[in-house]
Amino acid sequence: MSDFEVEVRITPRPGLLDPQGNAVANALRSLDFPGIGEVSVGRLVRLRLRAQSADAAREQTDRMCRKLLANPVIEDFDILVRPDRPDRPDRPVGS
Amino acid sequence: MSDFEVEVRITPRPGLLDPQGNAVANALRSLDFPGIGEVSVGRLVRLRLRAQSADAAREQTDRMCRKLLANPVIEDFDILVRPDRPDRPDRPVGS
Repeated sequence: MSDFEVEVRITPRPGLLDPQGNAVANALRSLDFPGIGEVSVGRLVRLRLRAQSADAAREQTDRMCRKLLANPVIEDFDILVRPDRPDRPDRPVGS
Repeated sequence: MSDFEVEVRITPRPGLLDPQGNAVANALRSLDFPGIGEVSVGRLVRLRLRAQSADAAREQTDRMCRKLLANPVIEDFDILVRPDRPDRPDRPVGS
């Protein structure tokens, strides 16, 4: 078993209503920020996971997304798996 | 003026309480997902922005974060600016 650092990006599906994104866009415009176009607000879930392999970690995270973390009807998600480096938390592999 | 696609990753500062992350970790464990370590939940804000340059877009987004998008006392944020490619929404430059 190895430790992995998993990052899940959950974003509203394009073309669907994004009330939170619209609210943020309107708030930014009302604060006089110029040039604001479309805004979307999603979630960034990071977790440490012990699994047999990177593939197993990814497969398990995919099930977590479908069961709890995301709503696949209205959200897209993508999963990034890296080896965990607890001794260098600020410089994960691949970043 | 050019169009930019800006991505802001807002994450709980390490070492501070993250009640949402803890709730997600407990929920995953109660759903019998094994090997769950620390979980953190942040936000992913994406916006289209018209600005003079990539540096100007970054500087303006930094001000948006401090004023509205993030809470710098308890959250870290980082900003990624890319040229906007409306004709290729699925393949942003640099990804």
